[in-house]
Amino acid sequence: MDRLMQWFSQIDWDKFWLDMISKSIKILILLILYFVLSWVGRKLIRGFFRRYRTQQMVSENRANTLESLILNLFGYLIFFTFAILILQNFINVTAIIAGAGVASLAIAFGAQGLVSDVVTGFFILLERQLDVGDSITLEQVNGNVEALGLRTTQVRDFDGTLHFIPNRQIMIVSNHSRGNMRFLVDVRIAPKADAEKAMEIIKLACEQEKATNKNIVDGPTVLGVQEVSATNTVIRVMGKAVNGEQFEVQRNLLKDIREELVANQIELPLSYLAPLEPGK
Amino acid sequence: MDRLMQWFSQIDWDKFWLDMISKSIKILILLILYFVLSWVGRKLIRGFFRRYRTQQMVSENRANTLESLILNLFGYLIFFTFAILILQNFINVTAIIAGAGVASLAIAFGAQGLVSDVVTGFFILLERQLDVGDSITLEQVNGNVEALGLRTTQVRDFDGTLHFIPNRQIMIVSNHSRGNMRFLVDVRIAPKADAEKAMEIIKLACEQEKATNKNIVDGPTVLGVQEVSATNTVIRVMGKAVNGEQFEVQRNLLKDIREELVANQIELPLSYLAPLEPGK
Amino acid sequence: MDRLMQWFSQIDWDKFWLDMISKSIKILILLILYFVLSWVGRKLIRGFFRRYRTQQMVSENRANTLESLILNLFGYLIFFTFAILILQNFINVTAIIAGAGVASLAIAFGAQGLVSDVVTGFFILLERQLDVGDSITLEQVNGNVEALGLRTTQVRDFDGTLHFIPNRQIMIVSNHSRGNMRFLVDVRIAPKADAEKAMEIIKLACEQEKATNKNIVDGPTVLGVQEVSATNTVIRVMGKAVNGEQFEVQRNLLKDIREELVANQIELPLSYLAPLEPGK
Amino acid sequence: MDRLMQWFSQIDWDKFWLDMISKSIKILILLILYFVLSWVGRKLIRGFFRRYRTQQMVSENRANTLESLILNLFGYLIFFTFAILILQNFINVTAIIAGAGVASLAIAFGAQGLVSDVVTGFFILLERQLDVGDSITLEQVNGNVEALGLRTTQVRDFDGTLHFIPNRQIMIVSNHSRGNMRFLVDVRIAPKADAEKAMEIIKLACEQEKATNKNIVDGPTVLGVQEVSATNTVIRVMGKAVNGEQFEVQRNLLKDIREELVANQIELPLSYLAPLEPGK
Amino acid sequence: MDRLMQWFSQIDWDKFWLDMISKSIKILILLILYFVLSWVGRKLIRGFFRRYRTQQMVSENRANTLESLILNLFGYLIFFTFAILILQNFINVTAIIAGAGVASLAIAFGAQGLVSDVVTGFFILLERQLDVGDSITLEQVNGNVEALGLRTTQVRDFDGTLHFIPNRQIMIVSNHSRGNMRFLVDVRIAPKADAEKAMEIIKLACEQEKATNKNIVDGPTVLGVQEVSATNTVIRVMGKAVNGEQFEVQRNLLKDIREELVANQIELPLSYLAPLEPGK
Amino acid sequence: MDRLMQWFSQIDWDKFWLDMISKSIKILILLILYFVLSWVGRKLIRGFFRRYRTQQMVSENRANTLESLILNLFGYLIFFTFAILILQNFINVTAIIAGAGVASLAIAFGAQGLVSDVVTGFFILLERQLDVGDSITLEQVNGNVEALGLRTTQVRDFDGTLHFIPNRQIMIVSNHSRGNMRFLVDVRIAPKADAEKAMEIIKLACEQEKATNKNIVDGPTVLGVQEVSATNTVIRVMGKAVNGEQFEVQRNLLKDIREELVANQIELPLSYLAPLEPGK
Amino acid sequence: MDRLMQWFSQIDWDKFWLDMISKSIKILILLILYFVLSWVGRKLIRGFFRRYRTQQMVSENRANTLESLILNLFGYLIFFTFAILILQNFINVTAIIAGAGVASLAIAFGAQGLVSDVVTGFFILLERQLDVGDSITLEQVNGNVEALGLRTTQVRDFDGTLHFIPNRQIMIVSNHSRGNMRFLVDVRIAPKADAEKAMEIIKLACEQEKATNKNIVDGPTVLGVQEVSATNTVIRVMGKAVNGEQFEVQRNLLKDIREELVANQIELPLSYLAPLEPGK
Repeated sequence: MDRLMQWFSQIDWDKFWLDMISKSIKILILLILYFVLSWVGRKLIRGFFRRYRTQQMVSENRANTLESLILNLFGYLIFFTFAILILQNFINVTAIIAGAGVASLAIAFGAQGLVSDVVTGFFILLERQLDVGDSITLEQVNGNVEALGLRTTQVRDFDGTLHFIPNRQIMIVSNHSRGNMRFLVDVRIAPKADAEKAMEIIKLACEQEKATNKNIVDGPTVLGVQEVSATNTVIRVMGKAVNGEQFEVQRNLLKDIREELVANQIELPLSYLAPLEPGK
Repeated sequence: MDRLMQWFSQIDWDKFWLDMISKSIKILILLILYFVLSWVGRKLIRGFFRRYRTQQMVSENRANTLESLILNLFGYLIFFTFAILILQNFINVTAIIAGAGVASLAIAFGAQGLVSDVVTGFFILLERQLDVGDSITLEQVNGNVEALGLRTTQVRDFDGTLHFIPNRQIMIVSNHSRGNMRFLVDVRIAPKADAEKAMEIIKLACEQEKATNKNIVDGPTVLGVQEVSATNTVIRVMGKAVNGEQFEVQRNLLKDIREELVANQIELPLSYLAPLEPGK
Repeated sequence: MDRLMQWFSQIDWDKFWLDMISKSIKILILLILYFVLSWVGRKLIRGFFRRYRTQQMVSENRANTLESLILNLFGYLIFFTFAILILQNFINVTAIIAGAGVASLAIAFGAQGLVSDVVTGFFILLERQLDVGDSITLEQVNGNVEALGLRTTQVRDFDGTLHFIPNRQIMIVSNHSRGNMRFLVDVRIAPKADAEKAMEIIKLACEQEKATNKNIVDGPTVLGVQEVSATNTVIRVMGKAVNGEQFEVQRNLLKDIREELVANQIELPLSYLAPLEPGK
Repeated sequence: MDRLMQWFSQIDWDKFWLDMISKSIKILILLILYFVLSWVGRKLIRGFFRRYRTQQMVSENRANTLESLILNLFGYLIFFTFAILILQNFINVTAIIAGAGVASLAIAFGAQGLVSDVVTGFFILLERQLDVGDSITLEQVNGNVEALGLRTTQVRDFDGTLHFIPNRQIMIVSNHSRGNMRFLVDVRIAPKADAEKAMEIIKLACEQEKATNKNIVDGPTVLGVQEVSATNTVIRVMGKAVNGEQFEVQRNLLKDIREELVANQIELPLSYLAPLEPGK
Repeated sequence: MDRLMQWFSQIDWDKFWLDMISKSIKILILLILYFVLSWVGRKLIRGFFRRYRTQQMVSENRANTLESLILNLFGYLIFFTFAILILQNFINVTAIIAGAGVASLAIAFGAQGLVSDVVTGFFILLERQLDVGDSITLEQVNGNVEALGLRTTQVRDFDGTLHFIPNRQIMIVSNHSRGNMRFLVDVRIAPKADAEKAMEIIKLACEQEKATNKNIVDGPTVLGVQEVSATNTVIRVMGKAVNGEQFEVQRNLLKDIREELVANQIELPLSYLAPLEPGK
Repeated sequence: MDRLMQWFSQIDWDKFWLDMISKSIKILILLILYFVLSWVGRKLIRGFFRRYRTQQMVSENRANTLESLILNLFGYLIFFTFAILILQNFINVTAIIAGAGVASLAIAFGAQGLVSDVVTGFFILLERQLDVGDSITLEQVNGNVEALGLRTTQVRDFDGTLHFIPNRQIMIVSNHSRGNMRFLVDVRIAPKADAEKAMEIIKLACEQEKATNKNIVDGPTVLGVQEVSATNTVIRVMGKAVNGEQFEVQRNLLKDIREELVANQIELPLSYLAPLEPGK
Repeated sequence: MDRLMQWFSQIDWDKFWLDMISKSIKILILLILYFVLSWVGRKLIRGFFRRYRTQQMVSENRANTLESLILNLFGYLIFFTFAILILQNFINVTAIIAGAGVASLAIAFGAQGLVSDVVTGFFILLERQLDVGDSITLEQVNGNVEALGLRTTQVRDFDGTLHFIPNRQIMIVSNHSRGNMRFLVDVRIAPKADAEKAMEIIKLACEQEKATNKNIVDGPTVLGVQEVSATNTVIRVMGKAVNGEQFEVQRNLLKDIREELVANQIELPLSYLAPLEPGK
């Protein structure tokens, strides 16, 4: 108990308070500087990209990608610079990191995920695998790229969910926004229907569709009988459409072919209990 | 046997008891200090955030996040400080950690999970991937964020279960509380029904719904025939709603479209044994 | 052969037997001490907690948790202390551990699981993720916590099985004993039944249930039409009950709603072969 | 060629043959000693446990566990001691292990599995997770424990197969031989049957069963209507039985309840084609 | 506050600005050089390969592969050279990499993925496992090789999606563009139909097909009755076609055999509800 | 060019050719020695075991196991001895292995699989988990052990395929050739049939079977009603048979019980469409 | 700017160009030597094996295996020798590898896959697990071995695809080309048919088949009733055939047994809707 008292009395209170105050002021100034620099920096970067886009040297998506990336890098740079500056008022950060024995090993093991994130992210950016706005599939996640960063990629799911994906989780990038996309319609007719005649009708429907729809790049081709089963015969139609329009084209083609088949009295595959519906 | 006796007699019992008592007092004081400081600290942090929230500088959720985080950090800081202070009465903790050979390696391997937790947690907080109250999906877990910490994140499942998730388990953060959410209704009609007419009716129903429901952000669009199968034709309707209201909107739209279709006598897909029900 | 003889004759048999006897006595004393101390220690800990519980400073569950933990720690402490004391009569344990080259590396790799267990266990206890008696789900295991330890957690499955789970296997702790729990009833009616009327009836049944059942915390709300399929229309009812009573409430609600619907002649979804049952 | 000849002539053949003979004799003696000691040791251990069991200080299972463990440890100890003694006639084993550079690293990596086995096995024994004869589930394996060892656990599958499981493979030990076990019967009745009346009958059947069967520890309780589907209504009955007798109890209860329901003319859920069977 | 002022005044502003300007000019020159060299290099490589292809020393695909690879290598080489030259104006890169203690370990762990990519990529190229244009399957991905690189391989999916696959993800390369491909038709006939007669008819159909289709390399062989089930008898036909034509051949064969069977009144397996369709 | 010439002229061609010839002779002698020793060694080992088996000290299977193991060890020993002797004519193997820095680390990582194989294999042999001829299940593989080695185990699948399994892949050894095996017959009767009477008949059938079949070790016991479903009542029969005969016993019992039930007119569970088969 | 000029003027252009030219010539000579040596070496190896095969000392498959392996080794040897010779004109390769600190660690981690490939490949070859032409299953891949190498194994799938499998991916080698193969036919008859009589007929059919088919090694044995279900009774027939002929035998047996059963009017299991087919 006495020692505690003694320890208290030993403290040079003047120096202690002075130290406290000077440090508080320092930290306050650093915090203000941080927020100001952060705000100004973001302003400048955004302004630069606004003008950059008007000059139309690169595509809109690429400009967004670069802006998202540079904002991300600037944010990390300024955050860690000030974080170390502030922390160094309390403890000697670099000395600790250098001198730690066991801890350093544990940190090295634990931080390898972070390094993997950055290495992978760097190459994704360098090899232009993604642009902001691209429709992509990353392992378990589907959606449009919302932002790109060195450590994480943000993907907006089609249902509105925002996914934050550490770059190291990105194994295979499947980019659906690069080049024309295929559309594929499997037309099913009754197993006893005349397949030759049906294929003729489908070919005509495809030609009509192609004539009217400028989004079709590579004409819908009727490949032939793909499968014969007890309940239906499958005729496959395939083609290529402008990127992003493939689903629209597919839906139109599906509706048109069906209408033509019905109009030409090609028997459709019936669900097996249909004949039980008396009144129809 | 004799040696044991000798060993007993050698002990300086006075010094031993004095040591024991002084140490007990020290530990008692430390324990009391720990509980007092812990209680006062928590009081102060909560008080600060109560006032912070009233000033409404940041959203309610972000304030909760910061409060949860700072309480968590404060708790760890004070716990480990006093734990080391108390332990040092018995053994020289730092010397042990520094001097351990094999053990240190084993510890480094074993503790890498802890470091991974903290590194991942740090970036989740820095990149604002989560806020307290957000509706999220983390790999196997669904629910609302209850608390955020450097090591663990607590998620309250929709069924009331509380999940404690070490941050290292958090691979992909899927945040359902960021921006408008999509709603999607697949309307099924009989394969022989008039799809064109049905789409007209559905469009009208959608417009009515939009006019009356202010939670719909992006009008329900009738995409067209999505699929044609032997038992039904599927017409897809899609749109965007205010975050959190998408399920409500979806349920209303489902009920309204169905009622309209019935009112306009569009044949619905019938379960195949329905015609067997004579009296109806 | 001669060497062997020579080697035998060289041995100082007197010293050998003396050494053997003195060591045997030492070990015997140590073993007796171990069992006495172990028994006394456990007695004291249990006695302390018996009084602790009567003072009702903490909940029953938390007291059990602390007792289980302290018994576990005491057991390990006393076991390893005496194990090393006994072993040191034969070989110099610490010297071996320190001096081992290859072996130490192998041990470090092999023992990392043990360290992981202790690190994870420590944080599970520190963060109060579990209490003895809690109903939990740990990855593949369901049940009530039976005992908590630094290395293993014991969970009693609902079917009586006792699971021993190394703490490192505990990834996500899903605790079902923290706060109110949701109950959810999906009422299915015939697709042609009047959904509006059914919802009215269900609402009344819910209000009755709430009035009579004090375990319902958050009134059963009729959310609306959740799904429309060819064979039934689903109406969802949701609410919150006191922890542990949710299944009871759910069962009661299910029975009551069904009875009300039958009484009000709302057509239930029929199994498709029902009309084939002539006599009913 | 000459060098080879020269190399041959250089060899001191006398010393070579002497060396060979002396070493052969040594190894022979060691081998004989090994088999004798091994045989005597096992005899003594088994004899000790035979008397130990007659004194009935511990349960039969625990005595078997200890015997199996001590035999296992003794076997390893004597095997490796003699193996090293014999090998050291040819090469300097310890020098090799100490001096190996690359190899040692490879060995450390490769042998970590072995260390994991021993560490895990040690704690399984220390924490008494298993006893010889217990009915257990270890990840993919079901059966009764046949023998326990530091490195492997032997489990006899219910179909007679003997599983050898390295202890490191044992993640979660699910022990079915610790305490009373639950039995659970889901009674299914026709959806239109009177659930209230059925529950009355089931309750009576349960009470009869409990009165006559002393293996029932916790009386079969009728929980209520668990599920209502189009084809049946499920009533759940639950209780606890003496360990190992739960399946017997369950089978009896199942048969009795069914007979009572039939006797009381509660309509059972009918397979949907039953009414088509005319003559029955 | 004063110190900050003092620190400001200490800076040699002249030297600072000179340094800034000289560095800016340096970087500008480096950037211009980078873009010029990059553009010229790509031009030269493409020009070289244009002439290379006209001489037809290697196949088109191999030339594309080499071009894609050399462009890829050139791009990395020039990028990293200039990146280091520019960075060295700010920080001493090599010194940092050499001197880093903990960080270096973390980097080594994190970067092993990159090294794995390059090592795997190198051997894929050396062993000519892939050529640009080959139809391949890489674990989860199907498509045609679009570009080959040391770090990533680009595969264009058949639906138009572009996959970027880090080479380390490529475990087993399944190349569908190396040699003739098999086609296989499983003909299903009614279980009561005459299998012998059906096989005769199928053999004739196969011979006709072979005579007219030059893409068939190895004649379609009728293997015999592959399976007998309650609903159909399966007769298997197999053969080999020119690479890439196997699906076309399969479709033709399927249609022809079916027509022949129908023409020869071999009963086809009927879907079990077919006889219920009255009017057909 | 000149330097190359100069380099050529510098070579001491006489010494070069002498060296080449002497080395060639050395290698030739070594190769001949290798084949001779290998052939003689195998001959001796096989001869030894032929005599060993005739003395019938151990079981046939154990003798095969030892022979397979010793041949395997002898093969590796002689191969690697001569391989190193031959290689040392060209390069200093041991020096390379000792002196390699980076490579050694890579080798250590890469070779850990090999060490794991040997360590696991050693314990499989030491603990006698397998004998040549045993019927076993190793993770994905079923079959009889064909050969045992330190690195690989060969298993002959029941369909004739020969599996080579690296020992490290062997996690859990499931040995089906150790002790009696269970047989289990689930008898299904119509849900309305008299279960009591059926059980009587089955019991009689079991007793008959036991009386005539000496392979039955533990009499087939009728456990009782295992399950009651809408389509059938299941009665379980269980017992133990001599190892390897359990399938034969099961097949016989199945046939006999069925015949007895039919003879006693116990209604069997009917497939639900059976009554629709009029003429049968 | 001036410094750059200065730096340019400092370069000794004469020496630079001389160096460039001499190096270019060196590289050219090395490249020519590489292609010549590579061509000559392959020629010699192939010639040697052509003669080797004519002497028929080893089987065709083993000769192919050795040829494929030696070509593979020769290719790697000559490639890496010249690659290092050429690279050493530019940079000091060995110095870099030796001196690299962090990089070396990363390389060691990254290259362990390569070492694993070679170690596994070496033992696959040494233990003769595979021969060129063998029909094998390697985890996910089926097919015939096309080529064997130290790093990769090439397998030609039955559909023509060529798989390149890194040896480290080869866990369990399942070789279908070693010894006789089993064939197995499950004959299904109607549940009410006379099983005894059916087995007689099947036995006769099997004996006929065996008499006429020399590919059957181990006569088809009728094992008995394997399974009794509501829709059919299964009788199992098993035997062994010459390697590669098992499928042919199985198909023949299937057809013959079926014909015999039909001829002897054993009722076959009918698909349950068959009786609904009126006209048959």
